Formats: sequence, C-alpha cells, structure tokens
Amino acid sequence: MIVVMKSDATPAQIDHMSRHIASLGLSPQVIHGSHQTVIAAIGEESPGMAEALEPGEGVEKVLPIMAPYKRASSELKHERTVVKARGLEVGGVRIAMIAGPCSVESEDQIVTLARRLKALGATGLRGGAFKPRTSPYSFQGHKEQGLKMLATARAETGLAIVTEVMAPEHVPMVAEYADVLQIGARNMQNYQLLQAVGDSGKPALLKRGMSATMDEFLLAAEYILDRGNPNVMLCERGIRTFEDHTRFTLPLATIPFLNEKSHLPVVVDPSHGTGKSRLVPAMAKAAIAAGADALILEVHEDPEHAVSDGSQTITPAVFKQLMDDCRRVAIAVDRAM
Amino acid sequence: MIVVMKSDATPAQIDHMSRHIASLGLSPQVIHGSHQTVIAAIGEESPGMAEALEPGEGVEKVLPIMAPYKRASSELKHERTVVKARGLEVGGVRIAMIAGPCSVESEDQIVTLARRLKALGATGLRGGAFKPRTSPYSFQGHKEQGLKMLATARAETGLAIVTEVMAPEHVPMVAEYADVLQIGARNMQNYQLLQAVGDSGKPALLKRGMSATMDEFLLAAEYILDRGNPNVMLCERGIRTFEDHTRFTLPLATIPFLNEKSHLPVVVDPSHGTGKSRLVPAMAKAAIAAGADALILEVHEDPEHAVSDGSQTITPAVFKQLMDDCRRVAIAVDRAM
Amino acid sequence: MIVVMKSDATPAQIDHMSRHIASLGLSPQVIHGSHQTVIAAIGEESPGMAEALEPGEGVEKVLPIMAPYKRASSELKHERTVVKARGLEVGGVRIAMIAGPCSVESEDQIVTLARRLKALGATGLRGGAFKPRTSPYSFQGHKEQGLKMLATARAETGLAIVTEVMAPEHVPMVAEYADVLQIGARNMQNYQLLQAVGDSGKPALLKRGMSATMDEFLLAAEYILDRGNPNVMLCERGIRTFEDHTRFTLPLATIPFLNEKSHLPVVVDPSHGTGKSRLVPAMAKAAIAAGADALILEVHEDPEHAVSDGSQTITPAVFKQLMDDCRRVAIAVDRAM
Amino acid sequence: MIVVMKSDATPAQIDHMSRHIASLGLSPQVIHGSHQTVIAAIGEESPGMAEALEPGEGVEKVLPIMAPYKRASSELKHERTVVKARGLEVGGVRIAMIAGPCSVESEDQIVTLARRLKALGATGLRGGAFKPRTSPYSFQGHKEQGLKMLATARAETGLAIVTEVMAPEHVPMVAEYADVLQIGARNMQNYQLLQAVGDSGKPALLKRGMSATMDEFLLAAEYILDRGNPNVMLCERGIRTFEDHTRFTLPLATIPFLNEKSHLPVVVDPSHGTGKSRLVPAMAKAAIAAGADALILEVHEDPEHAVSDGSQTITPAVFKQLMDDCRRVAIAVDRAM
Repeated sequence: MIVVMKSDATPAQIDHMSRHIASLGLSPQVIHGSHQTVIAAIGEESPGMAEALEPGEGVEKVLPIMAPYKRASSELKHERTVVKARGLEVGGVRIAMIAGPCSVESEDQIVTLARRLKALGATGLRGGAFKPRTSPYSFQGHKEQGLKMLATARAETGLAIVTEVMAPEHVPMVAEYADVLQIGARNMQNYQLLQAVGDSGKPALLKRGMSATMDEFLLAAEYILDRGNPNVMLCERGIRTFEDHTRFTLPLATIPFLNEKSHLPVVVDPSHGTGKSRLVPAMAKAAIAAGADALILEVHEDPEHAVSDGSQTITPAVFKQLMDDCRRVAIAVDRAM
Repeated sequence: MIVVMKSDATPAQIDHMSRHIASLGLSPQVIHGSHQTVIAAIGEESPGMAEALEPGEGVEKVLPIMAPYKRASSELKHERTVVKARGLEVGGVRIAMIAGPCSVESEDQIVTLARRLKALGATGLRGGAFKPRTSPYSFQGHKEQGLKMLATARAETGLAIVTEVMAPEHVPMVAEYADVLQIGARNMQNYQLLQAVGDSGKPALLKRGMSATMDEFLLAAEYILDRGNPNVMLCERGIRTFEDHTRFTLPLATIPFLNEKSHLPVVVDPSHGTGKSRLVPAMAKAAIAAGADALILEVHEDPEHAVSDGSQTITPAVFKQLMDDCRRVAIAVDRAM
Repeated sequence: MIVVMKSDATPAQIDHMSRHIASLGLSPQVIHGSHQTVIAAIGEESPGMAEALEPGEGVEKVLPIMAPYKRASSELKHERTVVKARGLEVGGVRIAMIAGPCSVESEDQIVTLARRLKALGATGLRGGAFKPRTSPYSFQGHKEQGLKMLATARAETGLAIVTEVMAPEHVPMVAEYADVLQIGARNMQNYQLLQAVGDSGKPALLKRGMSATMDEFLLAAEYILDRGNPNVMLCERGIRTFEDHTRFTLPLATIPFLNEKSHLPVVVDPSHGTGKSRLVPAMAKAAIAAGADALILEVHEDPEHAVSDGSQTITPAVFKQLMDDCRRVAIAVDRAM
Repeated sequence: MIVVMKSDATPAQIDHMSRHIASLGLSPQVIHGSHQTVIAAIGEESPGMAEALEPGEGVEKVLPIMAPYKRASSELKHERTVVKARGLEVGGVRIAMIAGPCSVESEDQIVTLARRLKALGATGLRGGAFKPRTSPYSFQGHKEQGLKMLATARAETGLAIVTEVMAPEHVPMVAEYADVLQIGARNMQNYQLLQAVGDSGKPALLKRGMSATMDEFLLAAEYILDRGNPNVMLCERGIRTFEDHTRFTLPLATIPFLNEKSHLPVVVDPSHGTGKSRLVPAMAKAAIAAGADALILEVHEDPEHAVSDGSQTITPAVFKQLMDDCRRVAIAVDRAM
C-alpha cells in the first residue's frame, strides 16, 4: 500500500502512521517528496487494510497496490482453467454455446426446444426453474418441477443443464438435477450462496453483478474457489449505465481484461447484455471476436408468448443463422465451434 | 400500456397485436397517427406484460403506464407509515438517529459506545454481527456472538437494535435478538431473504441496491409487504456512478420522490453514501433538510482501529456535534429530534 | 405523444390538457382506462413538446413517441450513406482503417509513421494538431504547424487526413488542410461548432459524447446534416460508467443499434474506448464483428515517449498484427479490408 | 507518482523505468516489496506524466499523487473567494439566490418576473438569450435581443444578470450586457470558451459537465483562473447516471468536497439537477444545509407555457415559499439569506 500524507501533515502524524503500518505486520518506508510525504507499506496487504488506514490523522488517501484476489488470478495459476460438465466444455479451443428459454415452461416445450438446439450445435441447455423476478407478482418459475423437466430434456439430448440457484438451501436440490449451477447477477454478492455453491463441488457459472467492478467480480469468484471448487466460469451479462436504448450496457472489454488477469473461462450473455433480440446476433459475433469462451443465449420457439424476457429472446431460426455466423468468426480468431 | 407500432407496420401486424392484447385480458384501442399507429391497452397491467409484447412483429416499443408496485404506493395507502421498534420510531415528526459501529467487535466496545450514543440522543443502535464482505479474506463478523453482544447493549441502554441479516436461514436467529432486520444493499434483490424477513413480522430496514431504480427498490419492499409485514423502512445509501471522489454517489432527491410515491418512511445512510467521514456531517444535515425520517450512521470510538469501514466512520465527538447541528436543521424544517 | 394523467386527475384537468394539446396543433384523443386516463396527442411532435406538457395540472408523465431526429434516420433515407474523402471510404463493403498518433509531434514523426501505416493498409491518417486537454498545463498541440505537417504526410502518402477542430473560428483553417473534420467527444454538443462544420461541407467524424444517449448523438449529427452536409460519420469512443479497469466503457451494441436506426456509417475508436493498449486488438476485432464500418486507432512508434495518450497507443508492430487479424474477421462477416 | 511494476518485472525493466522517471526531471526511489516492486517518482508531477509512463514495459499501473489543479486549490489559496457582481455576492455568509426563466421570452416577461423575484429576495437574474439545445429544431433563444431584454430588467431592478455564453466569439457581446457569464454543462470542456471567458475578466459561473469528475471540474476552472480571472463560481447541476426518476442525479456531497479542496464558491442548480419541479424545494433546502453558497433556480409565471424546461420550472408562488423555507435552513447552518 501507499499511504499519501497531506501536504501539511506533521512529523508526528507521519511517525504515527508508520507505527500503525508496522503494527499491521507491514514494513513502512517513508519517502519525503518535494510537495508531500508518502509512506510505502511493504508486505502482504490484506483486504480492508487500505480502508483501515484512511481515517488516520494527516492522511490524504491510501492507494492499494496488490490485486485483492488470489486464487482467481493468473499470477497464481498460469494454465487456463477448462470447465467441463458432460459434453459442455468451456475454456478450450472450441467455443461453447449454451442456449434455451428464459423460463422452463413445460416438459414439452423444453424437450422439443432442447432437441432443436442440440441439432443446431448447442452443448449446454439453459432454462430457469427458480426465477428471480423484480416483482413479487411475476411468474417465479416451476421450481423443482422445472428442474425435473430439464433433467428429462437432458436425458433426451445429452445437453448439459445450466440453471440458476437462488438460495443456499436450494443448492442440494438444484445440484441433484443440474450440471452447472448458475449464480445470477443479483446474487453475485450473496456470499452464503457463493459458499454453498463452492461446497457443492458443481461447476458454477457466476454472472457479473450489474454494477460490479472487476475486483468485486473476481472476489465473488474467490468465494467459490476458496471452498475448494475450481470450476468457475465468469459470465459478463451487462452493466447498468445511463444508456437507455439497451436494457444494459454490454462491455466486451471485460473479455480481454479477464483473460489477462485470470485463468477462469469467460462466458458472455448477449441476451441480457442488450435486452433486445435484434442486437443479439451482432453482439454474439463480437463477443467471440473479443475472445469469449462461450455464449449463453435465450432462445424460445415463440418469444412473443414466452412467459418472461421475450424482448431479448431469439427464435431457433435466428439461432441457426447466428450459429453459422459465429462459427465463421470463431475460425477467424483461431477458435472452433 | 401503449404499444407503439413501427411507421411501416402493416395492418395485419396491427391487427395481430390488437388480438394479442385482447388475449391478455386488456382492451385494445387503436389510434392512427399521422406518422405511426399506437395501440392503447386498457385495463390492469401486470408486471412483465409490456416486456412480453415487445418482440411482436411490427412493434417499435411498448410503454408501461402504471407503477408496478401496489402496497408500497401512496395511491393505495394515503396515511404515512410509522415504524416502531422499542424507543425507535421512524416516520413521525421526530427524526430518528440510528448509530453504531460498522462491526460489533466486543461486548465492551458495543456497550460502552451504546451508552455514549444513547446519552447523545440516538434511539437505535446499529452494528454488524453478520458482515457481507467483498473479499472472503475479510472479517466476516462475530455472528451469533455478536448478536448477543448487541442484546446486552440493548439491555443496558434500551436502544433498539438494527442489524443485518444475510440469509433466509438466519432470519429466525437474528430476529430473536434484533428489533429491526436490516437487508443490505447487495441483498436488495435476494428474494428469498425478502420473503423470510416479510414472514418474520419484524420491522425491516431495506437498503437500496447500489444500482437499483426506484421501481426496483419499491418492488423489493413490495416483496416484504406482500407477506403481510407492513413495517418497512426504505434506506437510501448511495448508488454507483462514475464519481471517484466519494465511494458512492448519495442522491438525496430520492427522499422527496419516495415521499411522494410511497407512504413508507425514508432513512438515509450518509456513511456508506459518501464513504468519507469528512463528508458525513454535511450530508446528514442535507438529508434532514430534504425530508428524511431517520439517519443511520457509523460511529466508532477509534475509527482508525475499527475492523471495518474506518474511512467512513465518525467519532462520538463528531457525532455529538452532528446531533446538535442536525437538530437545528430539523427544527428549521418543522421536525423535531 | 401520450400524456398520462394521474389516477386522481379531475375531468377539468383532462379537459384542460386536451385543449392545451390542440393549441399545439395536435389532435387529442382521450382514452379512459380502468385506473387512469391517458391522452394520445396525434400529429407531428416537435422537440420540447413533451417537456412543455409535463408541468400541467393532473399530469403524471408525458411519453414521447416519435424519434426526435429526422435527417439522420433510416426511416427518411433508406440507402446507406458512404462517406468518401480521397482514398478513405467509410460505409461500403470495405472496412476502413484510420490510424496515427494522438498528437502530431514533428514532420519527421508524422511522415515516417504515415508511410508505415499506408504500407500496412490504412487509408486514413489521424493526428491531433489542436488538442483538447483536460488541464491547461498539458501540451495543447502544434496548431497550424501541425496541420501543415499532416498535409505533408498526405502529399507523401495519399492518406486522407482526419484531424480535430475545436472551435468554430478554426473551421476554415482546419478545413484547408484536412480531409475529414473530427468533432471530439467533449464538443459533441458544441452547437456552434457543429453548425460551422456543417457549413464547411467537409466530411465530418462526430465522436459520441461520453455521456450522450443515442438520441442526443443522432441529434448532434442532425445539426451538421441540417446545414446541408450529408457526409457524417458516427464514432463510438466509449462512455463514462462506474468501471475502473478501463478508462471508458466501450459499448459495441451501439453499432447494430445505429445501423438499424440510421443510414450514417459507424466508426469505432478502441483506443479511447478502452484507454489500455493491451485491450485494443480484441476490441478492434469485436467492433468489426459487430458491424463497424471503420476503426480509428492511436498508433505511435514509441508510445512510452508519445506526448499524449501513450497508455492507449499501440506500436506499428501491433498494428500490423491487428490489421491481419481484423482482415480475417472482416471476411468472416462478409466485409473486406 | 507511484509506478507499480508487475510481479514478474525484470531488473532491466525496473532500471529502464527509473531512468525514464529521471529523464522527466523527477527523482526515482525504488522500493522492493515482498510481492512486487514500486518506484516512487519524487518531484513536481505534471499532468499527463502518469499516463505517459503507463505503457512502459513491465509496468502494472501508475498512481498519480498530487492534485492536478493548482490555482483552484485551497492548498494554494487559503482564504475563500467571494465573487461579487453588483448586488450579487457569492461565497460570503449570505446565501445568494439567482432565479429566472430558462429562456428570455419577451421584454415584458423578463421585466415583470425580475421585479417579482427582486421583491422576493433574489439578487441575481438568470435567463437564457443563447440557448444550447439538444435538437436543431428547438427554440435557440433570442440572442442579442434577449440580452437587451435582460439589460432592461437589470435597469429596472438592479438584479445582476447571469446568462450563458456558448461560443468564444460571442463573449464580447454577452459580456457587454451580462454581469456573470455562465458556461453551460455541455461546454465545461470547451477550452476556447473557457479561455475567452477568462480573458474577459467577467465573473464566471461554471457548470459541472454531466459526466465530469471533480478533477476535471476543477481543471476546467483552472483554465479560467489561469487567464488571470479569479472570479469563478463552481455550479453543481447534476450528473448522468442510471437513475430514471429524475432527469439527472444531483450529488450534494460535491458541496463539502469542493469546500474542502477549493476556495471557490459553490452554487447548486436544483432545477436541472432534478428536472422535476416537485423535487426542487426539498433539494434547495438540502443544498443549503450541505453548505452551498448560492442557488440558481428556474422560475416562470406559467411553466406550462414556458418555451423551454417547463417540467423543472417553479412558479413565483412556489419560489416565495422556497425562499421562506430556505431562509430558515440557512439560519440553522449559521448562514443568512
């Protein structure tokens, strides 16, 4: 850490901070500048230390230096993580496509659609059984019934099931049916849930919170990794900004940034990331060009009658074209699909 | 709802949408404009309806008209809600002050501080026993031990205990010790938790998510209200924006807006809302001037050695001055303190 | 426009608003809903009308329906605009690459670099002679001398010169040397400048303001188009959000959105859009995959010693690789380069 | 500055950066940490230096330490600046009220309103003659005719005239009629304009850009101060965020922050800052409680028929009540009005 003292900090204040730093197990090194003094605190920073030093007398600000995450960092683990769940493999040369409806509506719906998606090249099937809904009056999902429908679709197609789990106490039940446990954007900092998913040992798809920084995102992954579960996928799904022509802003620079800082594979969700089905195909191609390892997409036979998220859902026909287009882009960036 | 058709929408598309609207139980009324056609959908909108219509062929956009929340709305309940928990009363003429440390550190700390805060005029004692922390390596709170320390402080002072609950399964335990269950910003859309707090019947202090809109905030309150628990306080604690001189941006216009749209009392947290102890007193006064019903503040005997949030924590001496200053502002806006 | 009346609006208020709407030359159509009344205002909306109606007694809100821009709209002009300036052609099948240093530093620098860029496939040369700088103490550009250096580089290479103009009174001078007048993000709503560029008749590259919505961006273009200058390129260069791992957030969904709503070509600036040279190649490929018509990139022989923007500037060697990689992506999306 | 090297930076890279720092006239001090090396660069940082060092080989990031502004800083000038223009005085004990219509519409309108505002206690009259409008099709102001109307209103009332200037070439004309030159939010980084206003010697009211950081805001003021014009008022008028229930988000923490960092007086604009006339009174009181030196407010006899900004404009009757309410708050924070 670097503790920047105010320009009028007294020698006593500088001395006090140095001793405070030493009491934290770090070694203080005072640097007298022409304008102000800074104290370098050498040693292993732990989270919250910078924050703890800031209220000190005479302190202007404290600058942390080390990244706060460890297990998620590419400095600690150089080889890239490949997450595998049945036929779904995320993080290798081949780009994976996870597709399906926002909500599981009926067994017939999900099985028919799963067959279609499988035929078109998807390896993962998404579908919500537990639905986090902004309003208590919206459809909340078929819950365990929905999970059973997904399991049936898997039995019919072999697609890996990716579905959301919303509460720690549901983890065992969802883990029984699903191949990948999805943690939604609203729950990215639901730490009990992260730990429960970590403990389950199941592959996890962690969605970025809509206002999470990269440090917060990687620290959320750290909660899962820290429980001994190495199979974490990081999913960019759009952030909240002032833009109003899309439902969220989908910042694809996340992809090369995460690819540099972390060994974990990166998934992109252009459906939630735009909220507009018309923008999904272009953003799907762009995500692959930027280096994504997988896409997760909302597909429904009849988006107009989908029980949720219709406005951002594409039809199987659009998905077919998107697969063809994405495959060409994947090859152009030395990937396969 | 108003369904705006594209300027080149065909009569068949307009007809199709009209029938779709009718199938939802609403009455469509087609208005042919000089430039484009819009269809007014008359009747009770339910959440998700606008979204469901948007992917329709020929549809440009769908504009919802009704507010999506009901029980939180001042249209439904005209008299203002006053939440009472022991001596703490929020929503009446008197402005309530809830103060205390970020984390409960020891029984001695919390009891000593509680006495001091009580003497200075606080009626609520805040303090974290379960701490949601960005990093898994940060102090996570003393959990049940911390709750017991809070209960001791209450026994000594009579202050109402306001403390965070982080998971649905902890609600019974926290409710046993606390007078008010706080739902943190990161959990504003943890729906299982909202429902569990609703079911507990305990007064709830609901913090706004750091990227939540007013509709989302009020719908989160609706989850609690909908379980038959009317005692909800809405707490503005700052939002995430591009500003970097404060930890969050504290938007006080929330206060008069919520006071108009809802009957629920409004609490403001200038500690988290700024992240800088030096800015807290000014924002405390401003919040009261803008119409807040209560403040919640982080106070610690020695912020420099607080185990968390030191940079935004004020000392009892600053709190004393702040109380005096806020009291004068309260009187100037026809409130008491 | 749709005027939504409050649920307790009186018949007199509804009647008053109807007459107000009629006085604006629109035809009011009152729709009585189960919960509240809305008034559809039929006819040509002009900008500001919705705003003017909002303070009316009994009005809940006013929803505009028509897009506020006209000449920039793809509804008015169906064929896509191709902007041509010497060998630079933006908007056709071939994707154009505009490259060069942030600031023109010396004749030698710019001529040497221009030759190199030309050889690598660029068709436009960017370089700042007038530099808008956040601090008055930063280098402000070589001004007219810089323009002359750019002209020399053009004479040597045939590359089209793209350079920023910062004030209306400089337009004639910059137009004398440049092939394309760039309007910077900070000046996107400098209306005098927009009009002066419009009057010049020169092709314009209009950068999106860092907090501009799509409506505001297209209306800024409208200021230029409205002066009879049809040669406008829309340049996405990143927006300001809470993200702190990049200098700006580069939202590529802008590309398909603008391609749908407007006939104007879209340029993307991954250098400013990320602020990090390491992220530029991935975002360049992504922009092309998403449908951009051109890229504008900061390239410098020695970014470490560039007088400005070094952190986001790539070397010619990186540019060479980027060209090869982008060409492959361009072909994969049926474009050429 | 602190140059943080990557954990795998080589001795040669560290040595290279040290020499680079020395070549900039700073003194490098290398600190070898347990995890990575940092180099403190001691001496006078100039803007852009940190940026220039960032692309260096082996560099992780560069942390600037010194504030980039000088003349605006309270470190350089300890006594607070009081800006005076006729009877308008901003920065002293007395809080100033600047009020008037968005646009000057007619001589009769502005004179009548000015008399009313004067009688109610305003000391400044605002009113737009040159209007920056998002759309080229909106009313652009009466220009010089409008300035003359303002001068007439001043002759009648003695109120100081505060009006916007939009282009450097208009400064002499506007300065002839106005007492205070307003620089609008969209022009906060129109550097030619800032310099022209600086050169005019007239008091300036500088509005914060809607996505400007505090550093950028103070550096914009620095452009004016640097031309020898010390009479600058800083005006907070709201920032662009994801919030959609207000037109902008008005962050009042700006006030105590600027009061600490700068000696310049702070003005708040609750009209633009909320965009909703119903929220203006509460935010006016809050701004005063937070320490604002003046308010600038949109007032119109008949907001429903105002040619611009009606939705955020209050009537004289509301202004009268607001004055009474604000006066009480001012006294409660040891100010006068």
